[in-house]
Amino acid sequence: MDRVLTNLKLVTMQPDNGYQIIDNAMIGIQDGKIQFAGHADEHPDCHGHPQVIDCQGALVTPGLIDCHTHLVYAGNRANEFEQRLNGVPYEAIAKAGGGILSTVRATRTATEDELFELAVARLAGLKQDGVTTVEIKSGYGLTLEDELKMLRVARRIGRASDIKVSTTLLAAHALPPEFAGRSDDYIDFVCQNIIPAAANEQLADAVDVFCEGIAFSPAQCQRVFEAAKTHGLQIKGHTEQLSNLGGSALAAQMGATSVDHIEFLDEAGVKALATHGTVATLLPGAFYFLRETQLPPIALLRQHQVPMALATDFNPGTSPIASLRTMMNMGCTLFRLTPEECLRGVTCHAAQALGLQESRGQIKPGMDADLALWQVATPAELSYRLGVPDLMARVVDGHLFPANGAFNHAN
Amino acid sequence: MDRVLTNLKLVTMQPDNGYQIIDNAMIGIQDGKIQFAGHADEHPDCHGHPQVIDCQGALVTPGLIDCHTHLVYAGNRANEFEQRLNGVPYEAIAKAGGGILSTVRATRTATEDELFELAVARLAGLKQDGVTTVEIKSGYGLTLEDELKMLRVARRIGRASDIKVSTTLLAAHALPPEFAGRSDDYIDFVCQNIIPAAANEQLADAVDVFCEGIAFSPAQCQRVFEAAKTHGLQIKGHTEQLSNLGGSALAAQMGATSVDHIEFLDEAGVKALATHGTVATLLPGAFYFLRETQLPPIALLRQHQVPMALATDFNPGTSPIASLRTMMNMGCTLFRLTPEECLRGVTCHAAQALGLQESRGQIKPGMDADLALWQVATPAELSYRLGVPDLMARVVDGHLFPANGAFNHAN
Ligand SMILES: [Zn+2]
Ligand SMILES: [Zn+2]
Repeated sequence: MDRVLTNLKLVTMQPDNGYQIIDNAMIGIQDGKIQFAGHADEHPDCHGHPQVIDCQGALVTPGLIDCHTHLVYAGNRANEFEQRLNGVPYEAIAKAGGGILSTVRATRTATEDELFELAVARLAGLKQDGVTTVEIKSGYGLTLEDELKMLRVARRIGRASDIKVSTTLLAAHALPPEFAGRSDDYIDFVCQNIIPAAANEQLADAVDVFCEGIAFSPAQCQRVFEAAKTHGLQIKGHTEQLSNLGGSALAAQMGATSVDHIEFLDEAGVKALATHGTVATLLPGAFYFLRETQLPPIALLRQHQVPMALATDFNPGTSPIASLRTMMNMGCTLFRLTPEECLRGVTCHAAQALGLQESRGQIKPGMDADLALWQVATPAELSYRLGVPDLMARVVDGHLFPANGAFNHAN
Repeated sequence: MDRVLTNLKLVTMQPDNGYQIIDNAMIGIQDGKIQFAGHADEHPDCHGHPQVIDCQGALVTPGLIDCHTHLVYAGNRANEFEQRLNGVPYEAIAKAGGGILSTVRATRTATEDELFELAVARLAGLKQDGVTTVEIKSGYGLTLEDELKMLRVARRIGRASDIKVSTTLLAAHALPPEFAGRSDDYIDFVCQNIIPAAANEQLADAVDVFCEGIAFSPAQCQRVFEAAKTHGLQIKGHTEQLSNLGGSALAAQMGATSVDHIEFLDEAGVKALATHGTVATLLPGAFYFLRETQLPPIALLRQHQVPMALATDFNPGTSPIASLRTMMNMGCTLFRLTPEECLRGVTCHAAQALGLQESRGQIKPGMDADLALWQVATPAELSYRLGVPDLMARVVDGHLFPANGAFNHAN
C-alpha cells in the first residue's frame, strides 16, 4: 500500500443501509484507490513501506460531491440583488440589462483565464466544505464558441490535483438574444452544432436542459436529449422547478442520470424516476433564495425509493451560495430531510447523479480514495452545524490536502 | 502613526447616511485608534516611520460585531436534531433528558478549560466572517458558580489579542431544575446572589433576561433589570420572540441597549424603542432554524427609525450557525432587509446594541482600529454571496490578522 490512514471513525455510506459507522478504523490506499477500509484489527499486512497518517480520531466520510453547479461565469449580480431589495421592480432591472442576460454578456466578453480565476475563487468555498468532485455546467455562453469556452475552463479546473470535475453542456439554458422569437432554430443549432462540437472535443460528460415555460418545451428538450445520446453523452434536466410540464418523466424515460429542482413533480413523475433509476437532485439553495413555497415531493420520493441528491446549484442569479454544508442544513431545515439523507445526497447519491456510482461516493475497496476528514463526533453534526471550520483534510485519489491549520505535524 | 493601510476602498458606515464609500483611500493608525481615514490625497504627514501595508484594492468595512451569541457551552445537540427529523416527538426527547437542560447539565460538568477550547473552535467560524467583537452570554449554568464560570471563560477569550468580547449575564435564561415550581425564588437568587457576584468580580458588562411564557414574566424581568442597574450593569432582553408580553417596552423604558428577537413586537413596542434609543436586534438564524413564520415588524422599525442590529444568536438549540455573513444573507432573503441595513446591523448598530457606539462600528478618526478587509467589489456582495472565502484580513486595535492565504508577502 502507498498510504495508510489510521485512528479514524469510518462513515462508509454504502447505499440504503444507514451510516455504517466503524470505530477504530483504518483505510489502506494504493494507486489512488481504496484497498482496505475497516476495523484496524482486521487490516491486511501492509506490504511496501506505506506512509502512515494518524487521523487523530477524525470522522471520515466519502469526499463530498457537489453534483449541480454553474461555477464558471463572469459578471456580478450583487447590485441587482441590492436593487430588488430597494424596491426596484424586476422588469426595470431586466430592461436595464439585468438578469441572466447580464451574466451571458459578461461571460462572452471574459477570457478563459479570467473565467478560470473567478471560478477557482468560488471553488475555494466548496473545498472548505470537503468537496472532492464538482459538476460544472456551461449555459452562459449560448454561442458555439462561448459554450465551448466555458467547458474548456471547467476541464482546466479538473486538471488540478485536488478536485475532480464533471462537465455538463447546458446550451439549452436560455434563449440567446440572437435567436429571439426563434427558439426552435436555436435548438436546431444546439443539436447540430454545439453538441457535436463539444462531443468531438470531449469537453462534456453530459448534456442538460432547462425545461420550463420560461425556457424550453419538453419537445425541444427531447430533441436535445436525442442529439446528446447520439453523441454518447449522458443526459439530465432542470425540470419541474416552476411548473409541472412532464420534463422529469421524459428525461427519466430517455435514461437521464438525474433530474434537478423538481419542486412541482407529481406522483406519475416520481414513479418514472423510480422505474428508470433516475436520481432526484434537490436544490434547497435556490428554493431558499427565491423564497419558494412549493416543496419537492419528499414523501413520494421516499415511498418510491428514488435516490435523492443535494447540490448547491451555485449560480449568480438564484443560488450564490458556495457551501454544500449549507445545503445539507437547508435540506434538513427547509425540506425536512434527515441528516443521513443529506449526507447520502452529497456522497453516494450525488455520485449516481453523475453516473459515477461505481467509483465514487462510498468508502469501500475498489473505490477512488476520495475522502473528507472531519473534527466532529457524529455524522449528524455535518448537517446540524454551520460555520465552524471542522474540516481537517480532503483526500483526492489518495493525496492528502489538509485544511488550514490541521495536520501541521503530519505534513 | 504606527501603521498606514493604503490602496483600499473605504466603507465607513457612519450611521443613517448610506455606505459613504471612499475610493483610493488610506487609513492611518496610532496606538490602536484610527487617526486618519479618507482619500489618499488628503492624508496628513506621516510622522515616525509607520509600517505601510498595501491592501491591494481591498474593500474595507468596520470589523464586524456579533452582538448576540451563546458561544460558551458544552454538550452536543446534533443527535437531538437528528431524532426530531426522524420523527421522535419533542416530548420524548425532553423526557429522555434533551433540550436546554441537556446543555445545562453538560455545561455544569465541564471545566473552564474544556469550555474555553469548545468556544474557541466555534469562534474560528466567526473570525472567518470578519468578526472583531463578539458578545457572549452565560445562561447554561443557572447556579452561582456555573454562571460565573461561563463568564470567566468569556472574559478569558477576550484576553486574546485578535478578538474583543462583551460579556452578558443571562442567569434568567431558564428555570434550573433545583427551583422547579419556584421561579420567583430563583429570580430572588439571581438578583441577590448572582448579579452582585458577577458585578463584584467585573465579569459582566450587561444583564439579559428571557421574557416569555416559557421563561420569565415581565414582572420578574423588571426585578432582574433593577438589580442589574443597582450594580451599574447595562440591561437587554430576549423579548417578543414567541408572543407579545410587553417585555421590549419594559426593557426600553428601563434603558436597555437592545431588545432581541422581537418577532411579535407591536407598534406600541416599536415606539418605545424609538423613544428610548433602544436597538432592535434581529436574529434570522433562530427564525430560520425554528421555521418561524411571524416576521419582525421591519416596516414599523424603519418608519420609527429604530436602529436594527443583526446577530447569529449562536447556540446549540435554535441557531447552531457560527456565521455572521449567513445572518446578513438571511436578513436580506428572509427579512427583506437591504444589504446596507444588514451591514449597518453588524457594524454601527451592533456596536450601539452593546453600548459601544462611541468607539466601534464605524471608520472615523478616534474610533478603535477594528477593520475587516474584503476581496469584493461592492459592500452589497457581503450580504449577497455566501461560502466564498473573501475575507483578506481582520484588524483589531491596529494589529493585522491575515486570513489564510492572504498577505503572504506583507507579513
Ligand atoms: Zn441549475
Ligand atoms: Zn439568544
